[in-house]
Amino acid sequence: MAGFEQATTVENGEAQLDPQWTVGGRPNGGYLLALLARAAVTAAHPDPLSASAVYLSPPEPGPANVEVESLRAGRSASQARVRLTQKERVCVEALFTLGDLAVAGSPRWSDAEPPEVTPREELPRTPIEPPAAGVRIDMLELLDQRVDFRRPGDLRGWLSFADDSPFDPLSLLFAVDSFPPATFTLGGRGWTPTLELTVYVRARPAPGPLRVRQRARLLTESLVDQVCEVWDSTGRAVAQATQLAAYRLADAG
Amino acid sequence: MAGFEQATTVENGEAQLDPQWTVGGRPNGGYLLALLARAAVTAAHPDPLSASAVYLSPPEPGPANVEVESLRAGRSASQARVRLTQKERVCVEALFTLGDLAVAGSPRWSDAEPPEVTPREELPRTPIEPPAAGVRIDMLELLDQRVDFRRPGDLRGWLSFADDSPFDPLSLLFAVDSFPPATFTLGGRGWTPTLELTVYVRARPAPGPLRVRQRARLLTESLVDQVCEVWDSTGRAVAQATQLAAYRLADAG
Repeated sequence: MAGFEQATTVENGEAQLDPQWTVGGRPNGGYLLALLARAAVTAAHPDPLSASAVYLSPPEPGPANVEVESLRAGRSASQARVRLTQKERVCVEALFTLGDLAVAGSPRWSDAEPPEVTPREELPRTPIEPPAAGVRIDMLELLDQRVDFRRPGDLRGWLSFADDSPFDPLSLLFAVDSFPPATFTLGGRGWTPTLELTVYVRARPAPGPLRVRQRARLLTESLVDQVCEVWDSTGRAVAQATQLAAYRLADAG
Repeated sequence: MAGFEQATTVENGEAQLDPQWTVGGRPNGGYLLALLARAAVTAAHPDPLSASAVYLSPPEPGPANVEVESLRAGRSASQARVRLTQKERVCVEALFTLGDLAVAGSPRWSDAEPPEVTPREELPRTPIEPPAAGVRIDMLELLDQRVDFRRPGDLRGWLSFADDSPFDPLSLLFAVDSFPPATFTLGGRGWTPTLELTVYVRARPAPGPLRVRQRARLLTESLVDQVCEVWDSTGRAVAQATQLAAYRLADAG
């Protein structure tokens, strides 16, 4: 078992996509985004402030190539494009704004207060093969994920690494894509392949379990957009994401 | 005065950035995104489903180059990267998911109901030089924009083209970036330069004024993230966007 940091290492443009950070055998989209961010950050701009990715073709666990192109190198922020390829097939392309969250400063105003969530100890840990998912979610062996499924289209719960490693701005890019699709509570079936994922990291998280809310916003016959918000153990908003995904109704056969 | 469609025309990779679709003399970010989308759409996939851009360097009105690279050509959706350059300087890079909104189908479930907005006829039309903005907003000559500023961090109002042209999926990419920053109601001063803008277009809008809600989510000392949602005249959610922008407190000098 590779820890998250080790599993997202990129050296000389080469990465090893880890077989455990997967859903149905395929690397999780947030895991891939964190790996691309790790390749893009610099000493002056160590944090991803924004990350936007399009998912083109799902890679397999194993070797992959990561190519970073700097687009702008500013004083307080820089921007870069990063591309993940495997066997000469482009799998993901992402645009990043990089900066230093310590410089971005503390909250002055917020309309992102943490929602009420069932206490962590009252929710069961999501099993590796949840009956509704229809796939094996290997990454859940490395996570302590607890989800309240009682609100239609509005999942609320908690997330930790199973070994209690603290989250950082890079692993927050994973956290916002780690929850089940909110369509599970709306008659959806199976996983929802991500087309686009955009994340804003707003603060370095304090240690402790993250509070996560994943909401569906609008479903049509074939597409769903979701919003995921994450707060740290002190109740501070640390990340938010939107995601557009393909979707299949349970009765669509 | 060039209509929006004409002002976003790209021919053989060349565009003319229009002097009227500007804020403080610089082309509006949503206008640029619509122009890039127009260059990317195809006969099979005529609509932008998702658009994510990083803003690198503000271009000036005048000639610019647009380069489209297809990343994936699928059956129901394709994906592309588009780059805007001016005098060999890269100004904007954007990733698109393209498809056909007619195929995406009608809403099956929604948590994006239209909010209450002061009736359009009771709100004044925003002037071209609003006192609080500190800049001349030339594009407001071509728009009928009406904004209720009474809720802190939560602007609600209406948007039409001044000549009553209907909106389409491309001009919705502009609509989500056309409202003033919600920081105007929170002690912010001046414009807020966009670092990243992500838009999901969810339906072709019916004719008539758009209902727009622009909310600040979290402000730190130097960055703000905002959410913009747009409904058509029938109350259907047609687009939503998030934006990360640089920000300066009024008392920061």
